[in-house]
Amino acid sequence: MTSAAAPSSPIDDFFAVVPAGGSGTRLWPLSRGGEPKFLHDLVGSGMSLLQATEHRLRPLAGPDGVILVTGEQHVAACRAQLPGLSESAVLAEPSPRESMAAIGLAAAVLEKRHGDVVIGSFAADHVIHGTRAFDLAVREAVAAARAGYVTTVGIAASRPSVAFGYVRSGEPLGVEGAPHTLHVRGFTEKPDAATARLYLASGEYRWNAGMFVSRTSVLLGHLAEQRPELHDSLRLVADAWDTSRRAAVLADVWPGLEKIAIDHAVAEPVAAAGGVAVVPGTFGWDDVGDYNSLAVLLPSDDDSGAKVLGNPADVLRIDSAGSVVVPASGRLVTVLGLDDVVVVDTPDALLVTTRARAQQVKNVVEAVRALGREDLL
Amino acid sequence: MTSAAAPSSPIDDFFAVVPAGGSGTRLWPLSRGGEPKFLHDLVGSGMSLLQATEHRLRPLAGPDGVILVTGEQHVAACRAQLPGLSESAVLAEPSPRESMAAIGLAAAVLEKRHGDVVIGSFAADHVIHGTRAFDLAVREAVAAARAGYVTTVGIAASRPSVAFGYVRSGEPLGVEGAPHTLHVRGFTEKPDAATARLYLASGEYRWNAGMFVSRTSVLLGHLAEQRPELHDSLRLVADAWDTSRRAAVLADVWPGLEKIAIDHAVAEPVAAAGGVAVVPGTFGWDDVGDYNSLAVLLPSDDDSGAKVLGNPADVLRIDSAGSVVVPASGRLVTVLGLDDVVVVDTPDALLVTTRARAQQVKNVVEAVRALGREDLL
Repeated sequence: MTSAAAPSSPIDDFFAVVPAGGSGTRLWPLSRGGEPKFLHDLVGSGMSLLQATEHRLRPLAGPDGVILVTGEQHVAACRAQLPGLSESAVLAEPSPRESMAAIGLAAAVLEKRHGDVVIGSFAADHVIHGTRAFDLAVREAVAAARAGYVTTVGIAASRPSVAFGYVRSGEPLGVEGAPHTLHVRGFTEKPDAATARLYLASGEYRWNAGMFVSRTSVLLGHLAEQRPELHDSLRLVADAWDTSRRAAVLADVWPGLEKIAIDHAVAEPVAAAGGVAVVPGTFGWDDVGDYNSLAVLLPSDDDSGAKVLGNPADVLRIDSAGSVVVPASGRLVTVLGLDDVVVVDTPDALLVTTRARAQQVKNVVEAVRALGREDLL
Repeated sequence: MTSAAAPSSPIDDFFAVVPAGGSGTRLWPLSRGGEPKFLHDLVGSGMSLLQATEHRLRPLAGPDGVILVTGEQHVAACRAQLPGLSESAVLAEPSPRESMAAIGLAAAVLEKRHGDVVIGSFAADHVIHGTRAFDLAVREAVAAARAGYVTTVGIAASRPSVAFGYVRSGEPLGVEGAPHTLHVRGFTEKPDAATARLYLASGEYRWNAGMFVSRTSVLLGHLAEQRPELHDSLRLVADAWDTSRRAAVLADVWPGLEKIAIDHAVAEPVAAAGGVAVVPGTFGWDDVGDYNSLAVLLPSDDDSGAKVLGNPADVLRIDSAGSVVVPASGRLVTVLGLDDVVVVDTPDALLVTTRARAQQVKNVVEAVRALGREDLL
């Protein structure tokens, strides 16, 4: 079996699909429509989230095995950050159509190019700590995928988060090369706090990190059953992709594609029918959805638990424990006597809020839009 | 008596001295060493505090009766704001020597020029509401001053403030033209909160607004008794002021002048000897010492009590009652979910604090200095 190759070798016939979309509204004003979350270095690692994602996947998928799916308007910025990507490794979407269209397009294009291969989808804007644990989980997921399962990686929940969906596991799968993999009993939406505590106590629930590993034939077969129109349209686009007809077919077909997440289109109904598996992931993971989760990920600047994303010399704090400051304008940011405050300082817009309100930053974005200040979004 | 002239006429033989000094540390980063508080329009009146002060005093002192005492480095900015001031109406100090030197210099120069006249000193960076009440108080203070008293105007305390000094009044003075004026029993430093409440309850204490009205001969006579060296030095400077020897004498004498406030040098010891009177002032007054007092003075922007000093279109607030925002960089300032927060946004420095911490902004200034960022002070 190819999955028995040495862990340091790329996995045979495996492609990593990276959907790079979403504006990261709750990380405004750092994240903007024109410069979304995945283009930023949100944890001070020296790489953007997109670069870190590609860096993590290249050893698994090989030098030509990482495929980026992103909006046309982001192609130039993505190529600037990832100059090693080949021409054919970037699939540009004319407009956003959510994750099923993005991943389905990649599956259909790759199957057209390479036959029935295994793909794994990994968001461009998540943070992962623990490369070896990640590698092992993906390799095990590929083994389960080769056996015909749509396989996800379920993250060990370290707290009763209400910001994530959960995947509920069942009996062991019993597939060679996937000794830890379990059947999936179902997926859940983001729970309330009490339910999240029950999930954590049960030991059956893990965070759904949106990683799906599957043979292209399996994924597209499920899509053909669940969403036949979307499947047929994506096949049409894929057939034309590497030809002179691409632009014409895209113009014709793309605007009419159904907008739906892969979770709803395939993962949930197929799980109900027993066709989804989960590999327990033991690596650190976060989707960095808001400034509070950003705060958890950043190293503490001092004993007060204060966090800085940027140059600490640009921040002066007095009596401000647990504060999160993003000095992104070059100005000196001074904070006096406010705990758990969030200050995000960019050249044209400033946000001052609290970690407890981090999820509501999207309301600020809506208000900025209502002010007619789309130039800031 | 000249004080019986119509209230709309300038007062005969009266000069208004305006010491324009102090950097307004607690209003950083709006107020800076190079652009101190008095040069700013802090209440959205359309005039800087300096311009409003001159505007208020000119009807009382006449077109040539307002005399500005300020640091050499501020002369150009002051003249730009007050182009009507004559050459001789600005007295430039080579270095700051506190209020006794500034007012004593003006008294000595004016006595040299005009003989024994009445002067009143009025800080350049205070806010006053109620012009007619102010006029009447000053006219009454001039009447008491002509009778030989150093006369202050005591402001009716509207709250038990711990930010101001107080003047304690005694028996009626009994001087013609000054029917409301009282003897002063003494001055106090800024009290603690409990003492301030006792002061307010007693009815005997008023805020010391630093306004002192006196005949030049009386003021300089007291100074000669209390601080003979300072008196003699100021006379030397004044004798040379309108001559070619000014620069030489200033260079020789000024650096050695004692740094002392007029309160300590004259007002307190002379009050103890019965030589000080107080006119009860009923106009609104504040020294705008910090962002909390600024908040009290600004009109509310909406029902939440939020205040903006600047263009309200540059501020977006959600769930932020009582907040004070100074958008002075042209950027959009957004605040989410913080009550009573203070956000001061300038092109090179940002301050985020609370109204309760307003007095401690000076600690931020000290920390900025310790960082070696004198360029921001």
